[in-house]
Amino acid sequence: MERVYLDNAATTATRPEVLAAMLPYFGEEFANPSSPHHRGQRVRRALAQARRKIAESLHAEPDEIVFTSGGSESDNLAIFGSLTGSFARAHFVTTSIEHHAVLHAADALRARGHRVTILAVDREGVVDPNELRAALDGTPAVVSVMHGNNEVGTLQDIARLAAVAHERGAIFHTDAVQTVGHIPVDVSALAVDLLSLSAHKFEGPKGIGALVVRRGLPLAPLIFGGGQESGRRSGTENVPGAIALSIALELAVKELPDTGPRVGRLRDALIDGVLAHVQGAACNGPREARLPNNVNLRFDGIEGDTLVVGLDLAGIEVSTGSACSTGSLEPSHVQSALGLEAAKARGAIRLSLGRTTTEAQIDRVMEVLPPLVERLRALSSDLTVAGEAQPSALRKPRVHP
Amino acid sequence: MERVYLDNAATTATRPEVLAAMLPYFGEEFANPSSPHHRGQRVRRALAQARRKIAESLHAEPDEIVFTSGGSESDNLAIFGSLTGSFARAHFVTTSIEHHAVLHAADALRARGHRVTILAVDREGVVDPNELRAALDGTPAVVSVMHGNNEVGTLQDIARLAAVAHERGAIFHTDAVQTVGHIPVDVSALAVDLLSLSAHKFEGPKGIGALVVRRGLPLAPLIFGGGQESGRRSGTENVPGAIALSIALELAVKELPDTGPRVGRLRDALIDGVLAHVQGAACNGPREARLPNNVNLRFDGIEGDTLVVGLDLAGIEVSTGSACSTGSLEPSHVQSALGLEAAKARGAIRLSLGRTTTEAQIDRVMEVLPPLVERLRALSSDLTVAGEAQPSALRKPRVHP
Repeated sequence: MERVYLDNAATTATRPEVLAAMLPYFGEEFANPSSPHHRGQRVRRALAQARRKIAESLHAEPDEIVFTSGGSESDNLAIFGSLTGSFARAHFVTTSIEHHAVLHAADALRARGHRVTILAVDREGVVDPNELRAALDGTPAVVSVMHGNNEVGTLQDIARLAAVAHERGAIFHTDAVQTVGHIPVDVSALAVDLLSLSAHKFEGPKGIGALVVRRGLPLAPLIFGGGQESGRRSGTENVPGAIALSIALELAVKELPDTGPRVGRLRDALIDGVLAHVQGAACNGPREARLPNNVNLRFDGIEGDTLVVGLDLAGIEVSTGSACSTGSLEPSHVQSALGLEAAKARGAIRLSLGRTTTEAQIDRVMEVLPPLVERLRALSSDLTVAGEAQPSALRKPRVHP
Repeated sequence: MERVYLDNAATTATRPEVLAAMLPYFGEEFANPSSPHHRGQRVRRALAQARRKIAESLHAEPDEIVFTSGGSESDNLAIFGSLTGSFARAHFVTTSIEHHAVLHAADALRARGHRVTILAVDREGVVDPNELRAALDGTPAVVSVMHGNNEVGTLQDIARLAAVAHERGAIFHTDAVQTVGHIPVDVSALAVDLLSLSAHKFEGPKGIGALVVRRGLPLAPLIFGGGQESGRRSGTENVPGAIALSIALELAVKELPDTGPRVGRLRDALIDGVLAHVQGAACNGPREARLPNNVNLRFDGIEGDTLVVGLDLAGIEVSTGSACSTGSLEPSHVQSALGLEAAKARGAIRLSLGRTTTEAQIDRVMEVLPPLVERLRALSSDLTVAGEAQPSALRKPRVHP
């Protein structure tokens, strides 16, 4: 059975061209870029070249690229790192649907005595720029709003939010881990101060990411040491990773005019198909301003966990909320923030598409999913008869809002 | 010309068996270990297996292994992470010959108002346990002493120093980045609370390391997020890196009874050869309690930088101090700590051997190095005639202390 991988928001396989590009840096080109000999200096030049390529892909400058170990480190470095100088005691403003890398950093800041504001979102996960404006009173503040939400796919108007933050003298960070490589990301046009990205979300390897840091923005390091990355992130550079990131990003950006619309059409076909063929199904998150690869569905009366297992048995790999919160019995914080009550939030599954997702694979999901939902509901009814409590919405037909 | 790589302390090539072991995790086994489907769970099991293997190699428990992006992150996590609970305002005690990852973290702590004590070392780089004892007054303290020095190769009696720290109720960390894989490292026998290691120092890839954290020791994270590594270090796990680390360590430890003495003999042959055949040469660091792969030499009247270039042109790749401080005009902080005046400290070169270093390569160094030193000294004399200042020790014969 060919397996259908629809968990690309959790991670992707490293594409062969990217792996091929990084391989020499494990072998012949293994030297430390800080070593003084020719072999070291050759690697140093390759690293500089990777940095230039990444900067180009994002419309940033090479010296604005700080390599990190991935998205979580980038988010933490952005948040803790920007709290320096006159921003040392800054107000931290973020939203209720951020990744835990941001929300748990916010908890840590609160525990350290920082003022922290968590902005609410509407039922589609959208942040209101006016609410951001109202939260900023002109005192030093750091704002962090994610570009594309990893669970429900909501895209924010980052350029507008950044402009609002700047009006009030705040520093603006965006977690673009889900958008870079998936939609056009132009750091200059967005005019953000800090932007996080992670290679393994766009067919690069795990363990490498970057933080884009606007030139001139003071940034305190999280990791002190040999002074790599212009003192902003020490540690021997992950050279194979950096090369891989540069190539994965270059390819993704080059192919985006084709990939983006194609994946978006498959996404829409899947959402439309499910809503048309499954009673009591609904789509979480917006239909328009949505990540092209994100599908998030809920089915009245069915737990997402159960559906994930059933789909996996049928060869279709999906997840509930995000990979990071798997195993938790709590409903996802994102679904809760969208105003879904717990039972409905627990019902959600995420199907995240990739560049290699095909129409045939979406057809396969449409073959498997509707009857599976019916079978699970029948089973669930039997259990109810046997005395189990059931959510009230069970089997009640529901249309997309 | 076959090149002779003697910069293994800066980094090593990933050995083919290790690369082969990690490759599947870029491809078919690429899933996120937090994903709920079978593919994800399979990767989760592989990660757990890697963790067990690493724990076994170090005589630790699997839940004591925290994956990080490398040695610098491990050091920073150990230091900042242990400053929690009743140790939140702890006294930080370290030595003058630590890696910058520790010393610059110490600077940051001082700037945050922590009491910081930097212990001096003797002329061979050895820390006196009595001085450590005297620095600890029973108030909460975190002590960090490196196991093997990256520049001059000094090995410390970590078990004894850790015991002294524990007598006084302090937490003890050791940076074992240069020792793990090179000499036996038994976390239980050393009885340290925290130990840093980095894969690329023992033929694993760059971008992956670990911090061993004694069971029960509270550790605040540096990177918040999805709660990976039992909440101690968030971020999607670098699975290929973790697998690679486990295999590189397993192989290094297995082969250590052969590699250690063999490399040690080559080291001694090189030091003895240079001291016997080059006037005005001396060895920095101890002769006995020394990393088996570390040779650090100085030559009266010659700058280390110049010698590195000359050797590189002859196909021999070495470095001055550590890779991290390359390009600096300041003498190495380690050499200064050993009491070498600036001119002598600037004269040092480090030749760091590896598992694949051969007798023929050492012979090649002995062919090239002595005449090169003579040529450079002659050139230097000509320059002196032309008006350049020279250190007083120029050409004065010197024997090893």
